[in-house]
Amino acid sequence: MFRTHTNGELSLKNLNEEVTLSGWVQTIRDKGFMIWIDLRDRYGITQLVFDQDRSSAALLENAKKLGREFVIQVTGKVIERASKNPKIPTGEIEILVSNLKVLNSAQLPPFTIEDETDGGEELRMKYRYLDIRRNPVREKLIFRHEMAQKIRNYLSNEGFIEVETPVLIKSTPEGARDFVVPSRMNPGQFYALPQSPQTFKQLLMVGGMDRYFQIVKCFRDEDLRADRQPEFTQIDCEMAFVEQEDIMQTFEGLTRHLLKEVTGKEFEKFPRMTFADAMQKYGNDKPDIRFDMVFHELNDLVKGKGFKIFDEAELVVGINVKGCASYTRKQIDELTEWIKRPQIGANGMVWIKYLDDGSVSSSVNKFYNEDDLKKITREFGAKPGDLILILCGNKIKVRPQLSALRMELGNRLGLRKGNEFAPLWVIDFPLLEWDEELQRYHAMHHPFTSPKPEDIHLLKDEAGKARANAYDLVMNGNEIGGGSIRIFDKELQAQLFKLLGFTTEEAENQFGFLMNAFKYGAPPHGGIAFGFDRLVAILDGNEIIRDYIAFPKNNSGRDVMIDAPASIAKEQLDELEIAIKINE
Amino acid sequence: MFRTHTNGELSLKNLNEEVTLSGWVQTIRDKGFMIWIDLRDRYGITQLVFDQDRSSAALLENAKKLGREFVIQVTGKVIERASKNPKIPTGEIEILVSNLKVLNSAQLPPFTIEDETDGGEELRMKYRYLDIRRNPVREKLIFRHEMAQKIRNYLSNEGFIEVETPVLIKSTPEGARDFVVPSRMNPGQFYALPQSPQTFKQLLMVGGMDRYFQIVKCFRDEDLRADRQPEFTQIDCEMAFVEQEDIMQTFEGLTRHLLKEVTGKEFEKFPRMTFADAMQKYGNDKPDIRFDMVFHELNDLVKGKGFKIFDEAELVVGINVKGCASYTRKQIDELTEWIKRPQIGANGMVWIKYLDDGSVSSSVNKFYNEDDLKKITREFGAKPGDLILILCGNKIKVRPQLSALRMELGNRLGLRKGNEFAPLWVIDFPLLEWDEELQRYHAMHHPFTSPKPEDIHLLKDEAGKARANAYDLVMNGNEIGGGSIRIFDKELQAQLFKLLGFTTEEAENQFGFLMNAFKYGAPPHGGIAFGFDRLVAILDGNEIIRDYIAFPKNNSGRDVMIDAPASIAKEQLDELEIAIKINE
Repeated sequence: MFRTHTNGELSLKNLNEEVTLSGWVQTIRDKGFMIWIDLRDRYGITQLVFDQDRSSAALLENAKKLGREFVIQVTGKVIERASKNPKIPTGEIEILVSNLKVLNSAQLPPFTIEDETDGGEELRMKYRYLDIRRNPVREKLIFRHEMAQKIRNYLSNEGFIEVETPVLIKSTPEGARDFVVPSRMNPGQFYALPQSPQTFKQLLMVGGMDRYFQIVKCFRDEDLRADRQPEFTQIDCEMAFVEQEDIMQTFEGLTRHLLKEVTGKEFEKFPRMTFADAMQKYGNDKPDIRFDMVFHELNDLVKGKGFKIFDEAELVVGINVKGCASYTRKQIDELTEWIKRPQIGANGMVWIKYLDDGSVSSSVNKFYNEDDLKKITREFGAKPGDLILILCGNKIKVRPQLSALRMELGNRLGLRKGNEFAPLWVIDFPLLEWDEELQRYHAMHHPFTSPKPEDIHLLKDEAGKARANAYDLVMNGNEIGGGSIRIFDKELQAQLFKLLGFTTEEAENQFGFLMNAFKYGAPPHGGIAFGFDRLVAILDGNEIIRDYIAFPKNNSGRDVMIDAPASIAKEQLDELEIAIKINE
Repeated sequence: MFRTHTNGELSLKNLNEEVTLSGWVQTIRDKGFMIWIDLRDRYGITQLVFDQDRSSAALLENAKKLGREFVIQVTGKVIERASKNPKIPTGEIEILVSNLKVLNSAQLPPFTIEDETDGGEELRMKYRYLDIRRNPVREKLIFRHEMAQKIRNYLSNEGFIEVETPVLIKSTPEGARDFVVPSRMNPGQFYALPQSPQTFKQLLMVGGMDRYFQIVKCFRDEDLRADRQPEFTQIDCEMAFVEQEDIMQTFEGLTRHLLKEVTGKEFEKFPRMTFADAMQKYGNDKPDIRFDMVFHELNDLVKGKGFKIFDEAELVVGINVKGCASYTRKQIDELTEWIKRPQIGANGMVWIKYLDDGSVSSSVNKFYNEDDLKKITREFGAKPGDLILILCGNKIKVRPQLSALRMELGNRLGLRKGNEFAPLWVIDFPLLEWDEELQRYHAMHHPFTSPKPEDIHLLKDEAGKARANAYDLVMNGNEIGGGSIRIFDKELQAQLFKLLGFTTEEAENQFGFLMNAFKYGAPPHGGIAFGFDRLVAILDGNEIIRDYIAFPKNNSGRDVMIDAPASIAKEQLDELEIAIKINE
């Protein structure tokens, strides 16, 4: 037996017991006549002691030969520590070692196995198995496991059945790019890896499963942006005989349960905001409502005063940055430069300082008098000491710009607290988006998303105004889940396809399979999918999803640890009857 | 709201309540003046009634237009049934419908949605979403879900952490054929889909995760045999600081827990059998010990009596088929033909009947007198009425042949009962198998499997005799799990690679990555993997794993429902920089 206890469980209760422990050598303090070793495993750290009075010379000698990260097994007696460490559960005891066995030696790791390591990102990814030895990394993976367990148990108790849908499926032309898998048994043909189990979960509803969920790997061959992974995990759910409200209630219940488990607090009913409001007040369909700094539209107050830039703008809109009137010229210039960066793309920024003495100063004093400016401060409900920042331009551009500024200031001012959670439903999404380039509508969610019943009449002449039975669950400025009620009426679906520019034949070709299934009695149904990697990160007060993936890929889709993807043998290509093209 | 109750929950307790139900029309009995409809959903069946005295004419008329599998919503009053059906929970009540809404019409399904359907396998696979509506199919999927939940909860309580390992990994030359995925971002390179997370779980042990599990999809591009799936699900587990006994105890605990949940019975400690014994007594490394019919080797009793076929055979071995001495000549001839089929390949079969009157008769009376035959019956402990069947040949051939005969008789005689469970550990597998063709050893389990410590000395000169720290968990004649203790000692690993015919360079190339990780302090570790699809089937008293997969593929690896694999667009191939070869 390699151990009688783990390194996290011994205390004064075990005094004088003879125990056997195994683990990694975390630190060695060699005082010559005495040696202390911190022995580490997943469960904690236990201090070992060797000394020349109580240990044999040979044992002391062997202990001196140990190095960091050696794997050892020791037997010894639990004794009370002279200098106790109240920070760890085992801090009151140590093990007077009587027997030491080196189970495995270790090369010096390329970075320190400490909570704060000296290893850079690339190095830690290459030696991810060593990075996982560090507490913060391991704890994130354990947190992920715990969340998955809680989700599964909650949904199972709610009558959901986890059904495994296939990974080797069929490529579809819509959506993002598929990863494909050549079939050796069907040469010239390919499977595709699922971007989501959308079709299968709808088929399970047709099949009467009633309540389905799955925590499932999905795949998208996209050009990777920062913190996007080609394979990611989704909590995929679908329910039959439901309306939008049923789904929102059910998954608000799940989310509230998780928040309770994480924070210990009961959360109130989640607030709801229409897509239109979210865009108008936060410039964003996933607003972080942990902090205020709401948009105020200023067209009425600023136009017609001779300031051409405002006069010509479609929208003049600003935020009140509370308590920041003391920003220096330099600070404001830096913010201005920040929003003019190509990623944000604003042309400039107007500021109004509501000074502590009650006076008002601004970068547009030339055009607006004290009274004009006071009116603006009143619009924001500003108080002395507040700073108002204003952008202008086309709605479609200026809102995301001001949203980016708002989020940046939220970060800088410490308003986006990791241990605060602000869930929010965003509802009433537009059903369709007009594609200028193709001069046709495309589906904002997907082609099966149902319009709101009261908006169906709009499809005929004002389809762009129709709202969808679609909903996103937002937390702390991130979309953590989204879904919709599906169309289950054949005629409505046909009308939608027509709006989306499909001929009957095209619709048949692309969606015929699911449409065909719907002919055999499809129940009303709808669902939601959560990005599990992101949900876990956010619930843990973090935003970097890569930290919550055991073996993540880098921004080029590479696993630098195992060095994948890689070349394969010519025999493999031959068997698959494919060839790598030499690009001309 | 589509329903106030499901179709499985109403009873006399709900008498006179007004309820709303939704579901599929299972059956319609139209008596003209009265119509009864069975309404079905996942939860059960509720009888609806329309009649000309109590329902409006219009309602009755609408009910008459319904067809099988229509999706409807009804509102009505719960009333007591005149003729009760004690077989279903809702059998004492029916709903007097006051309102009927057709949610969706349905074409007549291509097969009946009944427990016993008229649909053939192919048709049911093509319309799998309709097949899933049938109780036996849906119940199997729900059973699978329940088993997965129980396994996850059990292992989590035992301190195991579920870690998701990547699906897009790297192709390795050993093992079965990999499915590969061309990488668009790394042209000419490929990911591979994992045959198992073996490397990653060992890395997690190096990373100190201590106890890992995962219920995970794995992939093998094999030529499919009956009931083999290219994608299958594994319960993958690994533990650090353990010996073989620790792993066996832990996973016997899991299996015993599942058996308790399924049968309600406590199971004793599982019996153990060495590989050598299993082969000798059952001709098979996964014996079904629900029934006896153990092999007896007869060389000592039958040789030297002038029967050349026995005299020249390496092994003469038989079984006692209890109570079957009354088999007719025709029956025995049929069995003889059965074992002579190419799949079995025996040359013939000798029989001895121990007749009810105490006399003995056989197909080899010419060579063996009554006394010789009696000795044989005594060897088997046979009783009057028993039938002894004997095969002969090379050990390596005759044992599987007799094993096949034993299993066939077990099936025919009803000895393999679906509701009986006989778990068994098979241990002490040989470490190596001699490959006649390549004239070298290959690893019976995998190259990281540890030899038994007491057999390490054999590696030098008698490596073929060394036993492995490997173990299979067998149930009812099926291997449901298997695993091993891994080598974590660098020198022992090097010795093994040498035995397996790898040069240092080859070993470095093929396994260098894992070996490198082992340099940084690998703990002793080992694991096990269960075939989840099979485990579920067996626990449900079945053996056909395809029935427990929601959307299985056929024997050509095709999903006939979605028609995958399929051709992909030329643009997709171009982006991936691959081409389909035209075979010359």
